[in-house]
Amino acid sequence: MYLHTELLINEIANDEPDPAAANALQEGLGGQFGEMRTMMQYLFQSMNFRGDAAAKPYKDLLQGVGTEEISHVELIGTTIARLLDGAPGYSGKKTDPVDAPGAKGATPLTIAKDTGNIHHFLVGAQGALPVDAAGNPWSGSYVYNSGNLVLDLLYNLMLESTGRLQKCRIYEMTDNKAARSTIAYLIVRDQAHENAFAKALESLGVNWGKVLPIPKTNAEAFPEVKKLVDQGLQSIQYTFSADNKSEADKLYRGASPSNDGTELTTEFMPSGGEPITIAPERREEFSPGLDPELLALIQATAEEEIRQSDRPAGS
Amino acid sequence: MYLHTELLINEIANDEPDPAAANALQEGLGGQFGEMRTMMQYLFQSMNFRGDAAAKPYKDLLQGVGTEEISHVELIGTTIARLLDGAPGYSGKKTDPVDAPGAKGATPLTIAKDTGNIHHFLVGAQGALPVDAAGNPWSGSYVYNSGNLVLDLLYNLMLESTGRLQKCRIYEMTDNKAARSTIAYLIVRDQAHENAFAKALESLGVNWGKVLPIPKTNAEAFPEVKKLVDQGLQSIQYTFSADNKSEADKLYRGASPSNDGTELTTEFMPSGGEPITIAPERREEFSPGLDPELLALIQATAEEEIRQSDRPAGS
Amino acid sequence: MYLHTELLINEIANDEPDPAAANALQEGLGGQFGEMRTMMQYLFQSMNFRGDAAAKPYKDLLQGVGTEEISHVELIGTTIARLLDGAPGYSGKKTDPVDAPGAKGATPLTIAKDTGNIHHFLVGAQGALPVDAAGNPWSGSYVYNSGNLVLDLLYNLMLESTGRLQKCRIYEMTDNKAARSTIAYLIVRDQAHENAFAKALESLGVNWGKVLPIPKTNAEAFPEVKKLVDQGLQSIQYTFSADNKSEADKLYRGASPSNDGTELTTEFMPSGGEPITIAPERREEFSPGLDPELLALIQATAEEEIRQSDRPAGS
Amino acid sequence: MYLHTELLINEIANDEPDPAAANALQEGLGGQFGEMRTMMQYLFQSMNFRGDAAAKPYKDLLQGVGTEEISHVELIGTTIARLLDGAPGYSGKKTDPVDAPGAKGATPLTIAKDTGNIHHFLVGAQGALPVDAAGNPWSGSYVYNSGNLVLDLLYNLMLESTGRLQKCRIYEMTDNKAARSTIAYLIVRDQAHENAFAKALESLGVNWGKVLPIPKTNAEAFPEVKKLVDQGLQSIQYTFSADNKSEADKLYRGASPSNDGTELTTEFMPSGGEPITIAPERREEFSPGLDPELLALIQATAEEEIRQSDRPAGS
Amino acid sequence: MYLHTELLINEIANDEPDPAAANALQEGLGGQFGEMRTMMQYLFQSMNFRGDAAAKPYKDLLQGVGTEEISHVELIGTTIARLLDGAPGYSGKKTDPVDAPGAKGATPLTIAKDTGNIHHFLVGAQGALPVDAAGNPWSGSYVYNSGNLVLDLLYNLMLESTGRLQKCRIYEMTDNKAARSTIAYLIVRDQAHENAFAKALESLGVNWGKVLPIPKTNAEAFPEVKKLVDQGLQSIQYTFSADNKSEADKLYRGASPSNDGTELTTEFMPSGGEPITIAPERREEFSPGLDPELLALIQATAEEEIRQSDRPAGS
Amino acid sequence: MYLHTELLINEIANDEPDPAAANALQEGLGGQFGEMRTMMQYLFQSMNFRGDAAAKPYKDLLQGVGTEEISHVELIGTTIARLLDGAPGYSGKKTDPVDAPGAKGATPLTIAKDTGNIHHFLVGAQGALPVDAAGNPWSGSYVYNSGNLVLDLLYNLMLESTGRLQKCRIYEMTDNKAARSTIAYLIVRDQAHENAFAKALESLGVNWGKVLPIPKTNAEAFPEVKKLVDQGLQSIQYTFSADNKSEADKLYRGASPSNDGTELTTEFMPSGGEPITIAPERREEFSPGLDPELLALIQATAEEEIRQSDRPAGS
Repeated sequence: MYLHTELLINEIANDEPDPAAANALQEGLGGQFGEMRTMMQYLFQSMNFRGDAAAKPYKDLLQGVGTEEISHVELIGTTIARLLDGAPGYSGKKTDPVDAPGAKGATPLTIAKDTGNIHHFLVGAQGALPVDAAGNPWSGSYVYNSGNLVLDLLYNLMLESTGRLQKCRIYEMTDNKAARSTIAYLIVRDQAHENAFAKALESLGVNWGKVLPIPKTNAEAFPEVKKLVDQGLQSIQYTFSADNKSEADKLYRGASPSNDGTELTTEFMPSGGEPITIAPERREEFSPGLDPELLALIQATAEEEIRQSDRPAGS
Repeated sequence: MYLHTELLINEIANDEPDPAAANALQEGLGGQFGEMRTMMQYLFQSMNFRGDAAAKPYKDLLQGVGTEEISHVELIGTTIARLLDGAPGYSGKKTDPVDAPGAKGATPLTIAKDTGNIHHFLVGAQGALPVDAAGNPWSGSYVYNSGNLVLDLLYNLMLESTGRLQKCRIYEMTDNKAARSTIAYLIVRDQAHENAFAKALESLGVNWGKVLPIPKTNAEAFPEVKKLVDQGLQSIQYTFSADNKSEADKLYRGASPSNDGTELTTEFMPSGGEPITIAPERREEFSPGLDPELLALIQATAEEEIRQSDRPAGS
Repeated sequence: MYLHTELLINEIANDEPDPAAANALQEGLGGQFGEMRTMMQYLFQSMNFRGDAAAKPYKDLLQGVGTEEISHVELIGTTIARLLDGAPGYSGKKTDPVDAPGAKGATPLTIAKDTGNIHHFLVGAQGALPVDAAGNPWSGSYVYNSGNLVLDLLYNLMLESTGRLQKCRIYEMTDNKAARSTIAYLIVRDQAHENAFAKALESLGVNWGKVLPIPKTNAEAFPEVKKLVDQGLQSIQYTFSADNKSEADKLYRGASPSNDGTELTTEFMPSGGEPITIAPERREEFSPGLDPELLALIQATAEEEIRQSDRPAGS
Repeated sequence: MYLHTELLINEIANDEPDPAAANALQEGLGGQFGEMRTMMQYLFQSMNFRGDAAAKPYKDLLQGVGTEEISHVELIGTTIARLLDGAPGYSGKKTDPVDAPGAKGATPLTIAKDTGNIHHFLVGAQGALPVDAAGNPWSGSYVYNSGNLVLDLLYNLMLESTGRLQKCRIYEMTDNKAARSTIAYLIVRDQAHENAFAKALESLGVNWGKVLPIPKTNAEAFPEVKKLVDQGLQSIQYTFSADNKSEADKLYRGASPSNDGTELTTEFMPSGGEPITIAPERREEFSPGLDPELLALIQATAEEEIRQSDRPAGS
Repeated sequence: MYLHTELLINEIANDEPDPAAANALQEGLGGQFGEMRTMMQYLFQSMNFRGDAAAKPYKDLLQGVGTEEISHVELIGTTIARLLDGAPGYSGKKTDPVDAPGAKGATPLTIAKDTGNIHHFLVGAQGALPVDAAGNPWSGSYVYNSGNLVLDLLYNLMLESTGRLQKCRIYEMTDNKAARSTIAYLIVRDQAHENAFAKALESLGVNWGKVLPIPKTNAEAFPEVKKLVDQGLQSIQYTFSADNKSEADKLYRGASPSNDGTELTTEFMPSGGEPITIAPERREEFSPGLDPELLALIQATAEEEIRQSDRPAGS
Repeated sequence: MYLHTELLINEIANDEPDPAAANALQEGLGGQFGEMRTMMQYLFQSMNFRGDAAAKPYKDLLQGVGTEEISHVELIGTTIARLLDGAPGYSGKKTDPVDAPGAKGATPLTIAKDTGNIHHFLVGAQGALPVDAAGNPWSGSYVYNSGNLVLDLLYNLMLESTGRLQKCRIYEMTDNKAARSTIAYLIVRDQAHENAFAKALESLGVNWGKVLPIPKTNAEAFPEVKKLVDQGLQSIQYTFSADNKSEADKLYRGASPSNDGTELTTEFMPSGGEPITIAPERREEFSPGLDPELLALIQATAEEEIRQSDRPAGS
C-alpha cells in the first residue's frame, strides 16, 4: 500500500519557461530509460519476486528504489510542467502578452507549431506528457522482469546507467536552471541506484573493477552535480518504508562500487523537499476552463466547507 | 513524495492456480481501462493541475484516488502472480509433478503453449505483465489529461465506469475464488471512484438523475460484491495523505450520486490488509535461478548482517 | 459529402453463433489488407489526387471503390457481430442458458477465456472490433498514398488481390453459413476491384497476360462464390455517385483483365440488400444496460414523439 | 450502404500554403480526438448497437453523426492538402521557383527538412496523412464501444468536447484563413454533436446545469466561429439518411443543453457546399508522375470515351 | 558487404508438423530477445562504433556475432516454417487429407482458428513471421546502441542471457524433435555469445565470479544441449570474416567466464551445415499459386536457360 | 549462412556534417519502404519460399536481392552516422568548439533540441537509428510475404519503386554531397531491383509497356544518378552467392523492362567499395566513454595479443 505527502523530493530552481528544454526532459520522464520505466520495472519485479526468506533484502531493495522512482516521476513531471507554463510568452516575445483564447482573432499559441512537441500545447495544457523526447508514448513492452535474479539485477544496473548517460546528455543540451536542477539531482540519484544494483551483484560474487560509475563522467564537470556529489547523495539509499520493514540495508552497505571512496548508507526518506503548489490558470488553453458561473459554484463549495467545519462534530 | 507499507490493500482468497483467469485479470491491470491507466492518468492530472486555491480539493481528490490506484496495481498484479504460480501442475495434471527444468528431456512448461498468454511463462516467470488480456502492452497514449477541469472529471467518471463494467464481465468469466475476491473488491472501489468524480461534477451543477452507478448492475447479483457493498465500501474515499493535507473531503461528502441512500465519507487509509509475502522458487522458470554456490553467498550476506547488527553502534 | 441508407449491401445467411469464425473474419475487417484499410486508402488517395481534367476517371474510380468499401466495413462488421451474438450459449452448451450477469455467482461468460479474442466479450459486448484476427489494432500506417498514379494503382491491385487471397483462406477455415455468405460476396467484389485497378493500368499500356485474377483459384471450388460469379458480379463496378458525376465508366469497360470472357460494366449502386436491424439486449454484457427506470424514460421519449407528430405542423 | 456526392460539406477559404498550419490540423484529422476517430467510433457503435425498437432513435443519432464525420474527414483532409500544395515555394522563398525534380541538382524540397512532418513531402505528395500532429499513425485502439448505452453516450460527449477543445487551441496557433475557415466550421459542428449526446443523456434523466458547452469559450472571441453560431449551426443535426428512415429527430429537439437559448432542430443534409476539384500536378513530387507517353495514353482513353458515347446505345 | 551460401548453420531434426511449437519458437525469432533483435542490435552497434584503432577487436566481435545472428534468423525461421508446413493434417487428423483450396466447400484450414497465431495460416502461408510468440510485430525500438562501450557490452551480455533463458523455457514447452534440435543449438550459441561479451568486459577489469552462465542451468538436464556442450560449441567464436580481417580473436581467448574449464577459441566459420531446400507447394494456401498455364511459362524459362547455356560463350 | 567483408558496397563522398540530411536519410534506412524493410522482406520470402525445382531461380533472385539489402543497410547507416558525426560544431558554429561533456556548465549538445530527431544525440551517440524520418521505429508488420509468388513479386516491384520514389524526393531535399552520393547509388540500385521483379513477372506473361521505371524521372536530371546510369549499374544484378549456386541469372537476362535499351546481366558481387573505418571518439556523448584507466586496459589487451602472436604456434 502507498502513501503520499505534499512535498517534491527535491527543489526545482527558478528560471524562464523553455519548451525545448521541457521536451528534452520528456526522455527522462516517458523515455525507454526514463523514470516511468524504472518505476514500473521495479514495482513489477517486486510484485513478482521469487525466493526464500534470505532473499528479502533483494526484494526490499527493488521496492525501495521503485517507490523512490514514483517521486522522481512527480519531480520531473512537475519540472516539465513549469518549463512549459506560460511558454507562449517566452523569449522576448512578451511585448504584447496575449493570454486570452484567440480574442479578436489573436494567435496566442503560435509558438506551438515550432516547438519540440506540439502536443504540449494542443493535447495537454502546457503540462507533462507520458511520452519520450521524440513523441513516442511510453510502452509496457519496456518493462523487463525475467524473474531470474541475476538477470534482473544486471538489467537494472544497465537501466540506471543508461538513464544517467541520457541525463548527462540532456544536461549538455540546455542551461536552463530549472531543467538543470532536476537533471543534476537525478544524475546523482541514478548513480545511487547504480550502486544499489552493482552492490547486490557484488553480494553474488561479481567484482566490478574500475568500470563504475557509468558513464565515466567526472562529476566535477557539471557544477550542479558536483555540489550534490560532495554531499554524498550518490551513496545514500532510501527505503520509503512507512512500516520500517525494509531489509535493503543488508545489501546497501560497505564500500561504494563507484570507486569514489565513500561508504554506502541507508536512510528512511529524504528530509526537506519542496512543497507542492498549484499551477496558475491558462486561459489560452481553457485550463481549468471555468467561467464565472462555474467558479462561483466552486467558491460556494469552499464556503460550505467552512460552515461544515464550524459545526460541532457529529452534528 | 511517496511511501510504502508491506500490506496489500485487500486480502486475496485462496484457490488453485488458474492461468486463464489470470489472463482475464490482465485487462484490469494493463488494459486501456485498467489500474495502471487510472493510476497514471490521475498522477498526471494531479501534477499538471491548474486553478486557484479554491480548486485544491479537486486536485487532492485526483491525488488521493491516484495514490490508491498504485495499491490497486499492487493488488491485482499480486493476484495474477498467484493465479499463475505453479500453473504447470494445474487441473489434475499433477499426477507426476515435474518442477525441474526439463530434466531428462521432460516438458514441465507444456501448458504454456495452450494458455491465454504464452508470455506469462516464456517472458515472465509465472508473474503479472504490463499488458492487457489480449496481450497488448500498456501505452502512454491511454493517459487523458486535457487540462480542462470539467472534461478531465467527465473522462474520469467514464473511465471508472468502464473499468467497473469490464470487471463485472471478468467476474462472469471465472469462479476462481482468488480472482473473484480481488475483482469484487475493485468493482466496489471503482464505484467509490465513480462517486468521487460524479460528486465533483455535481459541485459544478450537474444532476445525474438515475444513470449512476454504471453499469446498472444490482450488486446483489455478485455475492462477493454484495458483502462489500453492505459494508458501505462504495461510499468511502481514502486520502492516503501522510501529512494530512488533503482537502478531498470538501468534495466527497453528502448523499451518494449512486442513489443507494448512503452518505459519502472520507478516511485516511484502509485498516487491515494482507501482509505481503515472497513467492516460492520455480525451478522450471530458472527463477530466481540461484544454484547452491550463489545461495551460499546470499546466506553469507544474511549472516554478515547478523554480525553487523550485533556489533555496538558506531563501531 | 456522404449519405447513408438503412440497407446492408448484401444479405447475411442465417447460422449459429461462432466466435472462432467471427475472429477469423476480423482480418477482413481490421486487418492490414481488410476493408477498413481499403476504405481509408482509397478515400485518402481520392482526397489527395493530382492531375488534370483527363485524369478525373481515375479519381472517380478510387472514390467509387472507396465508397463501396465503407459499405463493406458495415457488412463484415455486422456479420462479425451476428457470429458473436449469444455466443456464450454456443455449441450445445445451451443446456442451462444463463443470460443474466453473474446471478448467484454464475459464470455466463466463461467461454470468453477460450476464444479467439477475449476482447470480443470483455471490451466489446459481443460486437465487431477495429482489430485484425491476431488482435492488433488497425493502424493509419497501413494507408498507402504515394501520389504517383502508377504506383498507387499498382499497390491497389496488390491490395485487393491480397484481400481476396486472405478471404479465400478464411473461407477454408469455417463452414459457418453466415460467415461464408459474407466472405464469398467479398471474394467476388475484391475480384471486381482487382479488375478495376488492373484495367486502369491497362489504360497506361500494361498487359497482364494470364496472371489475373490473383489468387488463381477456380471460383467453382467454392460453391457460394461460384453462384455469384455465374451472375457476373466480379465484372460490375458501382459508382455510388448520388449526383451522377462519376466518370469511372470511362475506365471500367471492355474485356475483363481476369480472362473470364466477360465484359466490364458500370452501374449506379446495387439493388436489393438486407434491411439493417437492431441486435437484441445482452444482459450478461450490461448492453445496452438500461434498468426499468431508464427504460421507462426512453419509452416516455418515444411517446412524446407520438404526441409531437400528432400535433399540427408549426404548433 | 453509403453514397457520395462531389461536394465538400463546407467551403474552404483561400490563402497561401502553410505546412505548419497543415500539420496542426492533422490532429483534427488523424489525432486521438480527430475526425477519423469520431467517424469510426460512431460507425462501430451503430453497427454493434443493442436494444429494442424504442432505442432506434439512439442508433440513428449515432449513424447520422457518424455519416457526417466521413464528410468531415473529407473536409479537413482536403484543407490540409491545400495548405501543403505548392508549399516548397512558400513564404517569400518564391524568388526562383524550382518546381522540377532536382533539375541540375536543384533542391526544390529543401523546406521539407524543417517542417512539422517531413512525411508530408517524403511519404505523401503534399497531401493529408492518417496521422496526428505529432506524427503518430491513427490507431484502432482509439475506438470506444463498450455496448453500454449510457457509457457510450458519455464517452461521445467527452470525445466531441475534447475535439472542440483541441480545435479551439489549433485556431489560436494559426491565422491562415484556409485553416481557420475549416477549424471554425468544425468547432461549431462539434458543439452540435455535444448537444446531440448531451440531449440523449438528458432523455435518460441527466441535467447538465451550466457545464455545457465544453470548453466554455465565448464563441464571440473567434470571429469565424461567431458568424456560424449566429446562424444557429450549433443547434442543427443532419440525418444524411437517403431513405429518410432516421428517427434521430425524436431525440434532437427541444431546448439546447448548451444554454444558448436555441431550440434543436433536425434536417436532412446541408445545402450548399463546395464542388470538389482536382489538385494540380506537382512535378517535384513525381505526382501523378506521368510523362508525355503515359499522358498520351490517358488522353486516348478520354477520346475513346467520346467515340463510345457518340455511338448509338446498344451498338 | 555480405555474402551468402546455401547452407543452414545447423541441421534441423525431422519430426511432425507442430504449429504450437512453431509459435513458441517465434519468440526466439521475432521476440524482444530473439535473433532478429540480436542481429539488428549488433549490426547497428558495429556501424556506429566509436574508438581508436586499439578498439577494433571490440567492433569486430560485434560484427562477427551480428553476422552469425543473420544465419540464426535463417535457421530458426526455417525451423518454424517446417513445423508449420502441412500443419492442417497434423495430429492424427490426417484420415481424409484435404489439400485443395476448399474443394466442394471443404475446410482444410480449420486448424488455423485454434492455433497459437492464426496469421501463420491466414497472412503467411504456413511460414515464419517477424513477430513474437504473442503476435507482437518486431520493433526497431528494441535495438539498444548507446554508443558507450561498457554499457553496450553490458546490455549485450544481458540480452544473450535473456535469449538463452527464454530458449531454455521453450525447450521445456515442447518435445518436438525439430524444434528441440534448433533450440538446443541456439542455447549453446547464446552461451558462446555470453562468453564473448563477458570476456570483453573482463578485458576492462570486471570479474564475473560464479554468476555465469545465466541461467544457471546444468546443461546435462537437456540431452540435446549436453551433446553440443560436450563438443565445446559454447566456447567457440566464429568470425564469418570473408576477407580475414577480424581481430575478434584478440578478445575471445583464455579461460571461459562460464567457469566450465574450457578455453575460448576463434574460428572462421562453422563447417558442415544443412543444404537449403525449397518447401513444397501448399494448394490450400494458394502458395505459390501457379496454375498450369503459369507453370508452363516457368518451365519455358528453365528450358530457355538450357538452350542459352548450350550456346558457345559470347554468341 | 552469411559472411562479411570489411568493405562498404559503395563509396561515400566527403562533406560537412548535416543532421537534417541525416534525418531525411533515416526514411531510406528505417522507413516503411527503406532498406531494413527490403532486407527483411526478401529474407523472409526466401526462407518461406514454396515451389518445385523449376522455381529455384525465383527464390535465388529473392535471396540475392535480400543479401544486397543487408549491405545497403550498412551503407546508408554509415552515411547517416557520418552526417551526424561532430554535428554539434556544424554550420559555422565552430568558432568555439566545445567537445567535452558540459565542462564548466557548457552546452555542447544544444543543437540537439532543434534538429530532425533529438534521439540522434540523446539516445544514440550521433549514429544511425532503426527509425524512419518521422521517428517511428521500424516494425515487423511492414514485412509482406503472402506466399503467393505473383503477389510477392508484384509487391516487391511496388516496394522498390516506392523506395526509389522516396529517395528521389530525399535527393531534392539536400545538396550535401555525402548524402547525395549514397542516395544516388541507391536510386540506381532500386531501379535494378525494379527490373529484377518486373522481369520475373514478365516470365509469367506480364508486359509492362511504358510504365517502368517508376517514378518516370529522367535520370539525367540528377547528375550523380546520371553518372551511374551511364555505367549501366541499373541493369546489373549481383548474386552475392559465395558457393556459386544461385540461378538468378536464368531470370535476370534479356532486354530491360525499364525501356532504356540495355540488356540485363548478372555478376557475382561488386568490385571496389570503400574500406570500413572506425568513427572517432565523441567525448560529449560519452562514446565510447573510456577513461584513461579503461583505455590502459584495452591497450594491455592489444599488447598481450602481440606477445601471443609472437609465440610459436601451439606453445
